Parts: sequence; C-alpha cells; structure tokens
Amino acid sequence: MYAIIPAGGAGTRLWPLSREAHPKFLADLTGSGATMLQDTARRLAGVATEICVVTGTKHYEAVRVQLDGVEVFVEPSPRDSMAAIGLAAAVYHHRHGNVIVGSFAADHHIQDAGAFRRAVHTAIEAAEAGYLVTLGIEATSPSSAYGYIQMGAELDIPGARAVDRFVEKPTPEVAAEYLADGNYVWNAGMFVVQSGVLLESLRVLHPSLYEGLTAIAEAWDTPAREQALADHWGALPKIAIDHALAEPLADDGGVATVPVSMGWSDVGDFASLADLGAPGDRVIAVNCSAAHAWGTGKPVVVVGIDGAIVVETPDAVLVTTREHAQDVKNVGDMLDECERGYLR
Amino acid sequence: MYAIIPAGGAGTRLWPLSREAHPKFLADLTGSGATMLQDTARRLAGVATEICVVTGTKHYEAVRVQLDGVEVFVEPSPRDSMAAIGLAAAVYHHRHGNVIVGSFAADHHIQDAGAFRRAVHTAIEAAEAGYLVTLGIEATSPSSAYGYIQMGAELDIPGARAVDRFVEKPTPEVAAEYLADGNYVWNAGMFVVQSGVLLESLRVLHPSLYEGLTAIAEAWDTPAREQALADHWGALPKIAIDHALAEPLADDGGVATVPVSMGWSDVGDFASLADLGAPGDRVIAVNCSAAHAWGTGKPVVVVGIDGAIVVETPDAVLVTTREHAQDVKNVGDMLDECERGYLR
Repeated sequence: MYAIIPAGGAGTRLWPLSREAHPKFLADLTGSGATMLQDTARRLAGVATEICVVTGTKHYEAVRVQLDGVEVFVEPSPRDSMAAIGLAAAVYHHRHGNVIVGSFAADHHIQDAGAFRRAVHTAIEAAEAGYLVTLGIEATSPSSAYGYIQMGAELDIPGARAVDRFVEKPTPEVAAEYLADGNYVWNAGMFVVQSGVLLESLRVLHPSLYEGLTAIAEAWDTPAREQALADHWGALPKIAIDHALAEPLADDGGVATVPVSMGWSDVGDFASLADLGAPGDRVIAVNCSAAHAWGTGKPVVVVGIDGAIVVETPDAVLVTTREHAQDVKNVGDMLDECERGYLR
Repeated sequence: MYAIIPAGGAGTRLWPLSREAHPKFLADLTGSGATMLQDTARRLAGVATEICVVTGTKHYEAVRVQLDGVEVFVEPSPRDSMAAIGLAAAVYHHRHGNVIVGSFAADHHIQDAGAFRRAVHTAIEAAEAGYLVTLGIEATSPSSAYGYIQMGAELDIPGARAVDRFVEKPTPEVAAEYLADGNYVWNAGMFVVQSGVLLESLRVLHPSLYEGLTAIAEAWDTPAREQALADHWGALPKIAIDHALAEPLADDGGVATVPVSMGWSDVGDFASLADLGAPGDRVIAVNCSAAHAWGTGKPVVVVGIDGAIVVETPDAVLVTTREHAQDVKNVGDMLDECERGYLR
C-alpha cells in the first residue's frame, strides 16, 4: 500500500493552539513527543510501502522538516480532498501501474496501533477484491460530531462488511438510534482502494478531475510538472472524496468498511483533547467539576465554571467549557480585521 | 479631623491581583494612575488636619514609599480594627487633647469626592455633638455582601440621623426588604468621633483595650515606645470597631449616621471591579454576555460563559464568572502547601 496523508485542515476548533499558519497536524497536541503528522507517518510506516504527504505551499517547509525523506506533493492552491488524494494516487499509478493506495488524515490520534495495522491489512484485502474500503470506527457514544456509515452484509473477507450508505452528521437523537442499532460506525475519512479503481471511478463520475489529474501525473516526474499544474490544477472541481467517490460507489455496492475499535479520536475540539488526557497545566477547580488548561505554564484556578477549558498562547487567551468546545470554530469570524491578520 | 487609614486587609476575593504580600490598597486596580491607598489619602487631604496610616510591619515600607511624609503607625502584629484605630486615636488624644478623629478604609473607591467631603463635614458636626458617626451608603441594590445600618429619627444636625441598630450581612430576600423599606443604608465602616468619646467608651466597654492603648500612647513619642508595645500590644483583645463600639453605643442612642450617595464601592470582588469600568484587556465574547479580563495583555476570547472573568498575573491565572466572584475568597485554601507559600 502507498499511503497518502492529505495535510490541510486548520483545526479551527482548537484555536489558538491550532492556526491557519500553524495547524494542529504540525503540533504535538497530545504530548507524545512527536507532532500529529509525525505520529501518523510513524503509524503508517509498519503497513505502507511508501508514504507521501499532500499539502499546500504554506506548510511545505514545515512538513519537509518534520518528515525528513518523505515525498511531499505541493498543491498550488487548495482544491479539497478529492484533488489532493487523487493527485498522489494518479502519480503513483503513473509510476507503478495499478497499486493499492490508502488515505489517512494527518491529525487524528489512534491509541491502539496494533488494531490500526490489523484493520489496514483487512482493508487492503478488501481493496484487492475491488472495493473502495473505509475504516469504520465503532461508535462509543451517540456523537453528532461525525458522519456515520451504515454497514450491510458481511463480505467473504473476514472483518470486512459492505457499506449500505454514508450519512451526514446526525442530530443527537438520531445518533442515539444509530448507536442502539449497532450497524452504524463513525466515518473517519480513511480510505484504501486500488489506484486503478479510483481513477476509473473518477473517469466515469468526474471526467474533468480524471483528465486534469492524469495530465498532471504524466508530467509530474518531468520538467513539465509546473506547466501541467499551471494548466490544469486551478480548474479541478473542489469536492471532498466522500461526495466524489464514496457515496456514489456505495450506491452501486462498491464500498466496504472494516469496523474497528482502536482508541481513535479526531482531536476535533478541546473536549476531545481533554478526553485524550493531553498533559496540561495544573488546574485547581473550586466549586466546579474538573477543568483543563493548556499553554499558560502557570497554575490555573477555576471558580464555579463546570468543565472549563483555558488555553493560552503567546498572543491570545481562550476560555470556554467542554459544552461549548464546538463553538470555538466561530472565533476567527469574531476577530476584527486587524486581529484576524495575526491571530487566525 | 485627624484621619486614620487602617491598611490591613488582603482582599482575598481579588486574588491573584490582590495578595497577602501585595494587597489591593497598594495597587492601582481602578486605573486611576494612583494606588487605592494614595487615592484615599488624596481624598482625605481636603477634609483632614492630619492623615495617618496604621499598618503591619509587612507593608510599612510600601506605605511609606507610596505616601511620602504621612505618619505611619506600625502594628507589631494584627489585633483587628479596634486596636489599630484605637492606637492612632489614643496617640492623637495624648498629643492634642480631645480632637475629632475619623477612620477610613484604605481600599474603597469613591467616585464623587465632593459628596464625600460634604458628608464628612456633616459627620464632624455630629461628632462634635458627641455621637459616634458613621457614613451610611445609600443602597442601590439588594446586596447581601454588606452589613446594613437601620436609621432612626433625624437629628438636629441637617443630614444626620440616629442609628437604631447595625445588622450583619442579610440574605438576598432580607436585603430586598431593606431596600424597599428605605431606612437602611450600607455600613462602609467609616467612623468619625471625638477621641475623648472613643477612649471613654473603651474605658467602660473594653477596659483592657483602654488601658493597653493609653499606656502605649503615653510612651509613643518617647524612647519607651518599643517597650510599651512589647508590654501591651500582644495582649490587646482582637475585636472589630463595629462590635467593640458601634453596636453597643447604638443600643444607647450614641451613634449617628450621615446617609450619602457618592458612587462608593468597596471593590470587594471582580464583579465590582468590572462595574467600576476598571480598564482591562480586549475581550471577545462569543455566544455569551460581556466578559472582563485583567492582566493578560492579550486579546481574550470567551466562548459560551456568561459574565466570565479572566485574570492573569505573572504566576497564576484565575477564571471565574460574575456570579461566582465572591467564591474567589476560598481559593487560598485550595492551593497546596507549596503553592500557598508563593501564590497566596
């Protein structure tokens, strides 16, 4: 398997720890001693023939320094995940012929690396059988923060099941039904598929993406790369791989999932960072439930605010609660124009 | 009038801005450009013949620097407000015979200095007529954070009324009744009285205080001062002036009050500091009502916490809400032994 790590999201719900200029995948949020990107690459080293990162010009230098020797595909501009993953897949396909490719987010946390490896091996088997395969995270709570995958029949490949459909983030009530049903898993956006299946599906479903990406891929390892990017990249449709491939292929029975329990977290907001036990500052909670603080380096005293979260960086302070952790994504819009320039 | 400023309280509800080692009277909390002690002295300069401060050994040096040329009485150990005020009153009495003395907290904020001066002049008149006189703050809300004074008949001195009784901090329900009644004012702990009346009352009500203080006062301006303090100070009963004099004298009709509206605040907690409009840091409130921040020097973003208060000093961070502002006084007890040493 050729592993592709698209590294782009700003992680705005982790502001001010995560910024456009310094997104969470470049940070050691969990206190592992490595950045989330480095952890991701390390995790994949055991299962992948080769690893690459697809990122923007802004983060190229940081990625190169953090992952010495890893190939980095630089997008001239962001065109969403289908173009990013498709670019690397098309280049690999052009170089090596039909190979298994897998796409893995740069900023997720996985506690049980062994379970991850076993699930990827199963996914590779299912991909070899022709499926677009996604890892399905066994739901541990009725979360409304994730999309869900409705699983169908078991496949011949042990550990893999057909995917009936993908569903968008549900309401908490619907999420509770999914949890009770038992046939729904979280969509963590990790895909394993043959490069030939991916490109052929693109050719049928999104011909302009197919044509642009194959033209760029053919030129990639030649002096014509820049010209090909200039000619084609800007015109690629902006679409996520879920909408571009996973959903339409699922309707045709072409998608499989490997349900897995591996201590997964997308570290999507400060509540999940707290749940990971990410080491923070000493917090003294007076008249309230446990609180969390990162970055102040000083004892933080919280009086009367249940589940408080306090985050300090050299240029900004954030104070919120677990309950409002998701609302942090709106902060950027509330900054005035001047602040937005340096705080976002 | 000889003005006495007892300067002792640590202002624990304003931790970490106010500390035992750096109490609020030594700080410029309101952004006036002067410390609260300097503001108090400046306000009294217009109505007092002389001003003195009574403080502990810990703060002597800071007080001397902040109020150059003002007499400072140093207590060898804290013996509560009756001993502190009584010491200065007894020394003045010994030096000058019977004079009017007034006691004014070092860490209150008064917006309308003119109204304060007029009230003090009325208080002096009432003190000349023999009363122990207290300034009564006209209540603007049903606060349960202050003691109240129940006013009786109007006196011959225009603007002064008899005091029927002092009442301790009431419940919010009782405070609402007091506010509706109209005959209750807040007890701000400001007293004006003849030194002779004060000492004679002490002689009758608290003979050991009377004897100790007069013995020290006789020795004060002689080489025997230290010996007199060593002999008597440590044995003085610890009692507040309210309990020692104001309450028993009120029962005998010996107390008057001057009700006054002068934009008074005891700056007792962060909610009242916010109400004063004390300048703070830029706060961006997302999904919540206005918040206040002091000391971070950075933009503070608050998400989803109504009335949040954020305070940062070089060694600690406090996060609370207006609603819990009073609970901050418990913080010192929650620190572990080591932290208590340097954070309290």
